[in-house]
Amino acid sequence: MTAEEKRVVLDAADLHSSLRDPLLDSMNFLNEIVNRYPRAISFAPGRPYLGLFEPSELDRYVGRYTAHLRDDLGFSKEQVHNNLVQYGRTNGHIGHLIARTLANDEDMHVPAESIVVTVGCQEAMILVLRALFASPDDVLLVADPCYVGIGGAARVLDVTMRAVPESEDGLTVASVTAAVAAVRAEGRRPRALYLVPDFANPSGHSLAPDVRESLLELAERENLLIIEDNPYGFFVRQGTARPTMKSMDAGGRVIYLGSFAKTCFPGARLGYVVADQLVAVPDGERVLLADEISKIKSMVTVNTPSLSQAVIGGMLLEHDCRLREANAPSAAFYRDNMNLMLDSLRKSFPADGGTRWNSPDGGFFVVMELPFPADQRALAVSAADFGVLWTPMREFYLDGGGDRAIRLSCSALAPEQIVDGVERLRDFVAAYART
Amino acid sequence: MTAEEKRVVLDAADLHSSLRDPLLDSMNFLNEIVNRYPRAISFAPGRPYLGLFEPSELDRYVGRYTAHLRDDLGFSKEQVHNNLVQYGRTNGHIGHLIARTLANDEDMHVPAESIVVTVGCQEAMILVLRALFASPDDVLLVADPCYVGIGGAARVLDVTMRAVPESEDGLTVASVTAAVAAVRAEGRRPRALYLVPDFANPSGHSLAPDVRESLLELAERENLLIIEDNPYGFFVRQGTARPTMKSMDAGGRVIYLGSFAKTCFPGARLGYVVADQLVAVPDGERVLLADEISKIKSMVTVNTPSLSQAVIGGMLLEHDCRLREANAPSAAFYRDNMNLMLDSLRKSFPADGGTRWNSPDGGFFVVMELPFPADQRALAVSAADFGVLWTPMREFYLDGGGDRAIRLSCSALAPEQIVDGVERLRDFVAAYART
Repeated sequence: MTAEEKRVVLDAADLHSSLRDPLLDSMNFLNEIVNRYPRAISFAPGRPYLGLFEPSELDRYVGRYTAHLRDDLGFSKEQVHNNLVQYGRTNGHIGHLIARTLANDEDMHVPAESIVVTVGCQEAMILVLRALFASPDDVLLVADPCYVGIGGAARVLDVTMRAVPESEDGLTVASVTAAVAAVRAEGRRPRALYLVPDFANPSGHSLAPDVRESLLELAERENLLIIEDNPYGFFVRQGTARPTMKSMDAGGRVIYLGSFAKTCFPGARLGYVVADQLVAVPDGERVLLADEISKIKSMVTVNTPSLSQAVIGGMLLEHDCRLREANAPSAAFYRDNMNLMLDSLRKSFPADGGTRWNSPDGGFFVVMELPFPADQRALAVSAADFGVLWTPMREFYLDGGGDRAIRLSCSALAPEQIVDGVERLRDFVAAYART
Repeated sequence: MTAEEKRVVLDAADLHSSLRDPLLDSMNFLNEIVNRYPRAISFAPGRPYLGLFEPSELDRYVGRYTAHLRDDLGFSKEQVHNNLVQYGRTNGHIGHLIARTLANDEDMHVPAESIVVTVGCQEAMILVLRALFASPDDVLLVADPCYVGIGGAARVLDVTMRAVPESEDGLTVASVTAAVAAVRAEGRRPRALYLVPDFANPSGHSLAPDVRESLLELAERENLLIIEDNPYGFFVRQGTARPTMKSMDAGGRVIYLGSFAKTCFPGARLGYVVADQLVAVPDGERVLLADEISKIKSMVTVNTPSLSQAVIGGMLLEHDCRLREANAPSAAFYRDNMNLMLDSLRKSFPADGGTRWNSPDGGFFVVMELPFPADQRALAVSAADFGVLWTPMREFYLDGGGDRAIRLSCSALAPEQIVDGVERLRDFVAAYART
């Protein structure tokens, strides 16, 4: 035998079953497709626009944060050093700054101790699912189509999911009620509902305030928890911002997930969970759900890099813990981009051409129906021959669907790229429809 | 009902069962006990000494890294910016620098593509366990006593574990062979063995080169994988460094876990996996295990903060990818510290006083037997009345044991604290033995 032949070859069938689920390819697909076609104009990734952040300012933010530790919190020189370079508290150092920001921006008043700082919102999902789901009979309800990160996290942890189909206007109380009843009829327990109430990824839908209210009542009635994920809330295109479900949540049913990837900068990978629910533990005590989540986190990443926390902490301080105001220029950029994309679509695609698209109130995403299946083959032609990328909507469906739809994101593009990209898309659709 | 009474209280019995396992309290216990007794001298946490890193150098390391991207890799200004601030490749940006470092330091030659950069070594454990363990019948063998991070990760993922008792000299081939046979007799599959061959946490034991060789042969014979974790390998106290099992691994049985927490700085939370095994996937192709692990990572943290990678990348470049040499001053510091602790123990504890301790060849940890149970009550008295902290060894046993033993770490202390701390320990042991 040669040296190569001596080496073990593992069998994919012996690895965890999630690895054979297409869901787990989605994130890498979305993150890496851009690298495969570097010259294409990409409506694929929901990345923030690079013009909004300057890496040369990193040092200043760290300085701003350490000054806060020293001057506002009375840290000694050694404690400051410790806070920056050493292993830190599992749930993070900047919960108090995040709590202040949530109070200012969202009128959401939660104790700093209920906040778990995480490595991006993705870790928040893994931690919350792991804490809440105890058996295969506990079911996670998710809007269908849905963000791939929650589905993938559930698959990695063997959490049972049930798709709740979105209507043309997004999730409805009736469809959630029906899903809850179906889960109970199977003898299972509907444990939590995951949703993005503002400018959902991928559909762009938002929930009206009365739908939010009704879903909170339903959660109360059905003993359901709600996992509210809010990465895009600041980026309103038309109308005004709606209240988060967490800020309306008198019953304590909402676990809130946040992210600084879009509002500060993605390279810090900083997210958080607000888990202010009480848990009755065996010795009769009551502890915060955040403290239970902390135990899981200690075994997933131990703690979030202190460096990332220092940078984001410095940015929050710089903006006096008012991120919505600080993001006004970003919100304007994304609003102008989406308006330009919708305008360009209207100019390029005739009303009777077999295409249509929605007009979300904000966020990063527009969904467009094509007159043919929007599959990997179509994407390959679009990328290679027309130099334009998009995401097949079928990637986002648990139970199938969206076969002719694509997701268009304009968040990472300059205006001239949007105009050019939509023209390329027009040419691709016209040519491919004829094949 | 008052507003407070209206709020849901969750029942701990409905949460994931790992949360009721004492294992999951261990990491927080170890990380936070220091905060509870800020004036005590602490032999508890295995933290690196703070004197070895200067936060004011952060900016210089980032600069060194970006110069490398620009000058050595030919990145454009936009690509450099992208690399620092944007979402990045799931498996990381600095695999090539880590591969170079492993070749220089460990004579370990692996392709950069087989390296997954992780948020600390803890994420590496979660990812590897999730990829490899497909069913409750797949069993993870762990040395007993063992690092709490691997046990906790296994519990979080519902991975079945079996303890392999360590002898006075550490893990033996006979005990692993017996454990493999016992697992098979239960109709289960021994899937992987986790070990720290150099200066193990908590026992301080190291495996002799012939034991490493025999364990590799056993892995081959029994179709077992070996998860080698090597956080302390540079820190030799006496004798010379032993070869890593990965560098001896002709059969490709070893998955190697590394960390920059002790050798660069912990605040970056940077670790990695070397997973150069091939996996036969259903379509007949063969892919790297690192690519399979990447899919899991995309659903756990998406990617490792680019900021942390830039800092550690800059440090690796600064030291010409030779971290062993760069760590010579740290190794000398830890060697002197452990020598001083062993000397102090000899001076303070009489040979017939019912105490004994081991003399590890390196690393951070010494294990000491006391003449009474080293439980939480004893620790509370030691901390409150004598101002000295240590870790009960029972924290590290899966199947019970170590009831009278404590782990002493001297890695984070200055010399005068070690002398003072051992005297406090002497006074505590003398007083507590009389109660």
